Amino acid sequence: DDNAYFDSYAHHSIHLDMLKDSIRTASYRDFILQNQNIFKNKVVLDVGCGTGILSMFAAKAGAKQVIAVDQSEIIYQAMDIVRENKLEDKITFVKGRLEDKELPVDKVDIIISEWMGYFLLFESMLDTVLYARDKHLVEGGVVYPDLTTISLVALGDMDTYTEKVKYWDNVYGFKMSCMRTPLLEEASVSYASSEHVMSEPAMIKCIDVTSTNVRDLDFTTDFKLVMSRTDTCTALVGYFDVIFERNCTKTVMFSTGPRAPDTHWKQTVFYLKKPIELSEGEVLTGRISCRKDPDDCRSLIVTFDIEGETLTYYVR
Amino acid sequence: DDNAYFDSYAHHSIHLDMLKDSIRTASYRDFILQNQNIFKNKVVLDVGCGTGILSMFAAKAGAKQVIAVDQSEIIYQAMDIVRENKLEDKITFVKGRLEDKELPVDKVDIIISEWMGYFLLFESMLDTVLYARDKHLVEGGVVYPDLTTISLVALGDMDTYTEKVKYWDNVYGFKMSCMRTPLLEEASVSYASSEHVMSEPAMIKCIDVTSTNVRDLDFTTDFKLVMSRTDTCTALVGYFDVIFERNCTKTVMFSTGPRAPDTHWKQTVFYLKKPIELSEGEVLTGRISCRKDPDDCRSLIVTFDIEGETLTYYVR
Repeated sequence: DDNAYFDSYAHHSIHLDMLKDSIRTASYRDFILQNQNIFKNKVVLDVGCGTGILSMFAAKAGAKQVIAVDQSEIIYQAMDIVRENKLEDKITFVKGRLEDKELPVDKVDIIISEWMGYFLLFESMLDTVLYARDKHLVEGGVVYPDLTTISLVALGDMDTYTEKVKYWDNVYGFKMSCMRTPLLEEASVSYASSEHVMSEPAMIKCIDVTSTNVRDLDFTTDFKLVMSRTDTCTALVGYFDVIFERNCTKTVMFSTGPRAPDTHWKQTVFYLKKPIELSEGEVLTGRISCRKDPDDCRSLIVTFDIEGETLTYYVR
Repeated sequence: DDNAYFDSYAHHSIHLDMLKDSIRTASYRDFILQNQNIFKNKVVLDVGCGTGILSMFAAKAGAKQVIAVDQSEIIYQAMDIVRENKLEDKITFVKGRLEDKELPVDKVDIIISEWMGYFLLFESMLDTVLYARDKHLVEGGVVYPDLTTISLVALGDMDTYTEKVKYWDNVYGFKMSCMRTPLLEEASVSYASSEHVMSEPAMIKCIDVTSTNVRDLDFTTDFKLVMSRTDTCTALVGYFDVIFERNCTKTVMFSTGPRAPDTHWKQTVFYLKKPIELSEGEVLTGRISCRKDPDDCRSLIVTFDIEGETLTYYVR
């Protein structure tokens, strides 16, 4: 439920982990501090401010006023942090669900937010950002990051796969083969080694955050993966890229893919029910569908149609 | 809330992680299979059966009947697993909160359970085991494991400590010193390196599971840590040991301490507000109090009185 979701962000260690992810935090810093023209004298809304780090970057970049919203108890720490940095005249805090709260200003020029979850859409925090955009962003305003994409690559890692599947043949002397399928159906949030990547990436979704709407976040699309070497495909790996671009003099982007430096988002690994032999240059075609779990709106159900089979996965 | 607690055990990967912890699972196996005299023709209750592995060990050891109870959805997998191993005549499943359910038998001879959480008592599942004992265990019956202890050692690891504390002086150019205390107050579930252990262990709690009661699980006790070398103490480390002993021809025990092989419980590290210089042979005396968090009965609040200061920690 939603209380459990916000409670988890009341733990201080989760914020340490996010701050220490320097791919994440330094990308936001670079975007904001290297594009101060965007922020100069502007009113900025920070959705899900956490420790307030993005709000402070915006204040430092010359924003006239920053409104920082978070429902978690961590916001009380953010208030202390902002005072410690003497930015309390610039940054105004609002504690609560953004959807339920009045803001001190009706309209803002810019929205910033670090809303991304595993496989981009896990946790569905983008829904709140879009709500804030529709209600509070001025005509012509921008939401940053302004562009995010989700991509897939094929993975050939038979050792890991065999270990995962064979494990259930003999568990301390017992057979547990019925655990195989449900476990494969849980998408694995883990680091996929770049050496096992066996295809070019295929982008399956591009989200223009300033123009998309909540309905578009449940999507179905065809994809083609072109093999870069001959191997047995054991999994499809999902990841996302984040781009700060609109009105920028200096574009900033980062990737959470297997070939990029590690982030706390890792990758999302979908193990195949049956591995597929593929040759260099061969194309694996398929269809992916991604939608919110009707039983738990912060979780995702991802379905692949490949090689005549339908595979369903839960990201939770 | 409790639904979130049981839902987390509906994920199959958590059961894989527990099964793969071979210190945990092989200890239960060794205790049960090497002490078959205890189980022969007995009625056994397995509290929180998960995938049913302990129930199957008990059946294999000659139990007449095993009743396996779990509230999580994982119990449906356990039913399949038991059928796969043709043990369905021996093992009866009951899905639900043990406190709310009637069992197919009124009394059992033996209770087995893997109820241990971080710092032993996190998650408070022992409460349910004690409830089951009082309601269902025959006079003279035994709960296994029958003995568990909690111990402390002093840790001298200045590098980790300095990194933890200094981090907040400059976070991407901002001061966040107010994060230091709340973060130190979150007990850290992590591996403490045995090379940094600087004292002999001190046992702070011994739980005889067959005779203890729920009130005794909130406790306060004095402790003395005798330093085994001269160093700066930066943290106290808590861990637990588990012993299968009563009526055993072959005693089995395992430890989750920093000198023992790693388990999924890791250790629980309580970082000091101020490091303490201590010499070999010197004794650090203190008092520890451990109680359930009144706001979240599955979490713990641990308080230390040492060197004239009171330090409070949350295990959650």
